[in-house]
Amino acid sequence: MLKAYRGDIIFTPTPQEFSVLEDGFVLVEDGTVKDVVGSLGAEYAEVPVIDRSGCLIIPGFNDLHVHAPQYPQAGLGFDCELLPWLDRYTFVDEARFADPDVAERWYRRFLVDLWQAGTLRFSAFATLHTASTWRLMELAQESGLRPLIGKVNMDRNAPDSLIESTAQSLADTETLIHRAAERTPNVGFIVTPRFVPSTTPELMEGLGELVAHYHLPVQSHLDENRSEVAWVRDLHPDIPTYAQVYEHYGLMPRGRTVMAHCIWLNDAERALLRDRQVTVAHCAQSNLNLQSGIMPARRYLDMGLQVALGSDVAAGHVLDMTRHIVMSIEASKALRFIPGHEDERPLRLAEAFYMATKQGGSFFGRVGSFESGYDFDALVVREGDNLLDLSVEERLERFLYAKGGAAIEERYVDGALVPRPFAEKE
Amino acid sequence: MLKAYRGDIIFTPTPQEFSVLEDGFVLVEDGTVKDVVGSLGAEYAEVPVIDRSGCLIIPGFNDLHVHAPQYPQAGLGFDCELLPWLDRYTFVDEARFADPDVAERWYRRFLVDLWQAGTLRFSAFATLHTASTWRLMELAQESGLRPLIGKVNMDRNAPDSLIESTAQSLADTETLIHRAAERTPNVGFIVTPRFVPSTTPELMEGLGELVAHYHLPVQSHLDENRSEVAWVRDLHPDIPTYAQVYEHYGLMPRGRTVMAHCIWLNDAERALLRDRQVTVAHCAQSNLNLQSGIMPARRYLDMGLQVALGSDVAAGHVLDMTRHIVMSIEASKALRFIPGHEDERPLRLAEAFYMATKQGGSFFGRVGSFESGYDFDALVVREGDNLLDLSVEERLERFLYAKGGAAIEERYVDGALVPRPFAEKE
Repeated sequence: MLKAYRGDIIFTPTPQEFSVLEDGFVLVEDGTVKDVVGSLGAEYAEVPVIDRSGCLIIPGFNDLHVHAPQYPQAGLGFDCELLPWLDRYTFVDEARFADPDVAERWYRRFLVDLWQAGTLRFSAFATLHTASTWRLMELAQESGLRPLIGKVNMDRNAPDSLIESTAQSLADTETLIHRAAERTPNVGFIVTPRFVPSTTPELMEGLGELVAHYHLPVQSHLDENRSEVAWVRDLHPDIPTYAQVYEHYGLMPRGRTVMAHCIWLNDAERALLRDRQVTVAHCAQSNLNLQSGIMPARRYLDMGLQVALGSDVAAGHVLDMTRHIVMSIEASKALRFIPGHEDERPLRLAEAFYMATKQGGSFFGRVGSFESGYDFDALVVREGDNLLDLSVEERLERFLYAKGGAAIEERYVDGALVPRPFAEKE
Repeated sequence: MLKAYRGDIIFTPTPQEFSVLEDGFVLVEDGTVKDVVGSLGAEYAEVPVIDRSGCLIIPGFNDLHVHAPQYPQAGLGFDCELLPWLDRYTFVDEARFADPDVAERWYRRFLVDLWQAGTLRFSAFATLHTASTWRLMELAQESGLRPLIGKVNMDRNAPDSLIESTAQSLADTETLIHRAAERTPNVGFIVTPRFVPSTTPELMEGLGELVAHYHLPVQSHLDENRSEVAWVRDLHPDIPTYAQVYEHYGLMPRGRTVMAHCIWLNDAERALLRDRQVTVAHCAQSNLNLQSGIMPARRYLDMGLQVALGSDVAAGHVLDMTRHIVMSIEASKALRFIPGHEDERPLRLAEAFYMATKQGGSFFGRVGSFESGYDFDALVVREGDNLLDLSVEERLERFLYAKGGAAIEERYVDGALVPRPFAEKE
C-alpha cells in the first residue's frame, strides 16, 4: 500500500552533500521508498498522508559496533587504557551475563535506549553465553529493531569466568545460527570472534568454515591499540599483519565484514580492507576514552574505504548516535593538530551523517537513505523553535549537536512505526 | 538554623582525589557547610535531616565562560572556523537581542536550561544592548542562580548592527554597574570587553578605570585562535603579547579576572596569568568545534595556573557541564598524540571535576566544595541502579559520562533549594 510522509526531508545520497526537500513528501510503498516529491500530483490524490509538517524526517541511525552486555558499565573506568579496563570492568560485567535473568533485565534496557536514540539497526556483540545471547536475539526480534547479533567466541587469553573450549564455542555458535534462521526473521546472526588474541587458530578456522558454509557476516576488532597490535604480532609471527590473520582464517568475507576501530592500519591492511570491502566501524568516542588513538578518517575516505560509525558502548559511554556523529567530526578536527595531518580536511557534517545513515545502513541492505528502492527506515525529529531563520540543513545540525536523541518523536523501520519496546511490561 | 543532608557525598577538596563519604551527612548552618560527618551524634539529635539516601550529593557546577545571547545558535555552523563563524551566525544572532522581547524569551530558556544542567554559578557575556542585558540580570536574580553578567563592549571591528561609540559604551556600562549594585544582590556585574580586536584603546582604558574604581571583576577572550593572535599583534605592535594588552589597560585585576580559551599562551603570558591569579576558562568543546586548538591543560596545572571550565555556548554546543568535564578529559587524551605532549598525563576524573566545582567556584567566593565554611551549593543526583558493585566515585563517573544533567533531581544554592525558574509563567 502506498503512503506519503510529509515533513522537512533531509538525507545524504552521497557523503558530499545533503539532499533536502523542505515541506516535501516521502512516498513509501510496502515499506520501500518509491520517491521523494515536493507535492502530491493528481495521481497521488488518494494517497493517505502522514503529516509531520514542521518536523525533520531523516533516515534512521545505524550503529556498526556495540557491546550489548557492556551497557551496565557505560561510563566507567576511563582513567584506564584498554587492557586494564577490560580486566577491571568488562570481564567482570560480562561474566554476570551467565545468568539469563541478568541478561533479560539489562538487554531490555539496552534495546529501549537504542530505540530512544533512534538506532534502528546495529551490529552487536553479546557474550559467550548461549542462553543469554539467545534471550537478546528474541528480545531484539520483539523490539521491532533490526540488528545483527553475535555470540562472542573466546577460547584463549580470557579470565576463567569467560572462557570456553574450542569445540563448545563452535557447537554453540552453530546452534544459534540455526535458531536465528528459524525463529528470528528480523535479527540476523553475525559471527563474532572477540579479537585475535582471544581466539585460537583452531577456533578461527572453525568459525571461518561456518562463515563459508552459512554465508554469514563477521564482526571483530582490528588495530585498536598499539599494545594489542604488538600482541597479535607475537601470537602470529608467521602472518604479516593483524588484518591478514582474520583473512587467513576465512573471517573476512567480501562485503560482509565489519571491523571496529582500525586506527593503526598499515598500508597493506588498508589495501586489504578495501579489496575485501570491509566496513570500518569508526568509534571516535571510545578511541579517546581508552587513549587508543585518532583514526585518520579523511585518509581512509580518500582511498575508498567504507567508514561507518560505532558507539562501541561501553568503551564509548553513550548509545546516542548524534553524539558519535559529532565526536567523529571533533576527532577529525583534533587530528589536524598532529603534524603530518594538518592538511586533512575535517569531516563535514554531511560526511559524518552519511557514515551514520547510508554507509552504516548498507551493511544491512538498502538502508539509510531515501533514494528509490530503500527500506523506509526513518526518524521524525522535532528540534524546537528557532530564533534565526534556519535552513533544513541547519536545523539538522542543531538537532545533532545541541538536542540529540531526546528530540526524536517517531521511528519507522522498513515502513512500520516502531512503538517503545516492552512498554506493556514496565 | 542547622540542617543535615543525608546521602552519598563526594567532592574534591584538592584536584588529586575525591573526598567520599558513603551514606553520610552534610551539616549546613545558615547556608554554610559546617561539617561532613558519617553519623549524627547526640549533639545533633534534634537536627532536621533532609534524607537523600541512595542519591549522590555533589557540589553544584560552575560555568566560567558562556554567551547567554548565543544560546539560540547552539549547535550551528561547525563546518566554519572562528572568524567566519562569528560573521555568519553570532553577529546575526546577537543583533536580534536589540529587541528586549527577544531577550526576555530566550534568556528565560537559557536560565531554565542552566538550572536543569545544575550550573548554579556562571560568568556570562550578554550583548552590548543595555536594556536587554538588564533584563538578563533581573531574570537571573529571579531564577535563584548566582551569576556574574556583563554587558559586552565593542567599539571597533564589529558589524554595523553591533557597534557602539566609546563614550556610550562606557556610560552604559556604568549605568549597569550601579543598577546591579542597587537591585540584583545575587547577580554581580563583570566588566566584559568582547576581546581586544573589538575594543579601542580608549575604551579599554575607560573600562580599566571602572574596574579600579568599582573594584570589579573582568572577563574576556585570550589566545583562542592563531589568526586572532596575529590580528592582536598587528593592532598593538607596541605591546609584546596579547595578554599584556589587557594588563596594560587595567583589565587584569589580580584574582578577579577570567580569560577564556588561553590555548596559545606563550611563556611570558603564562607567567603573567599566574602572577595575576587569572582563572583560565578551559573550553575544550568549543576549541575543537572551531578548530582553535587543544589547550595543554596538564602543563598549565603543573605550573600552577588556575584552570576552570567553560561551556562557551554557542561555540560549545551544550550547557550541560557534565559534557564539558568529559570533553576536557577527552581533549587531554587527544593531546597526547601530538608530538611533544606524549608524556603529559591526561586529566583524571577528579581533576576535571575539581575544575568544574571548586576551581570554578572560587571565582564566586567559598563555593564548589563541602569543606567547612563553604556555601552549600549542591546537586542531588539519582544516577540509576547498577549491575556491578560500584563505589561512590564510580557512580559519580557513570553520572558524568553516561547519564548527564538529566539525572539531577535537586539543586541548592547557598543552602536554599532552587525550584525550576519561571515555572508559573510557562
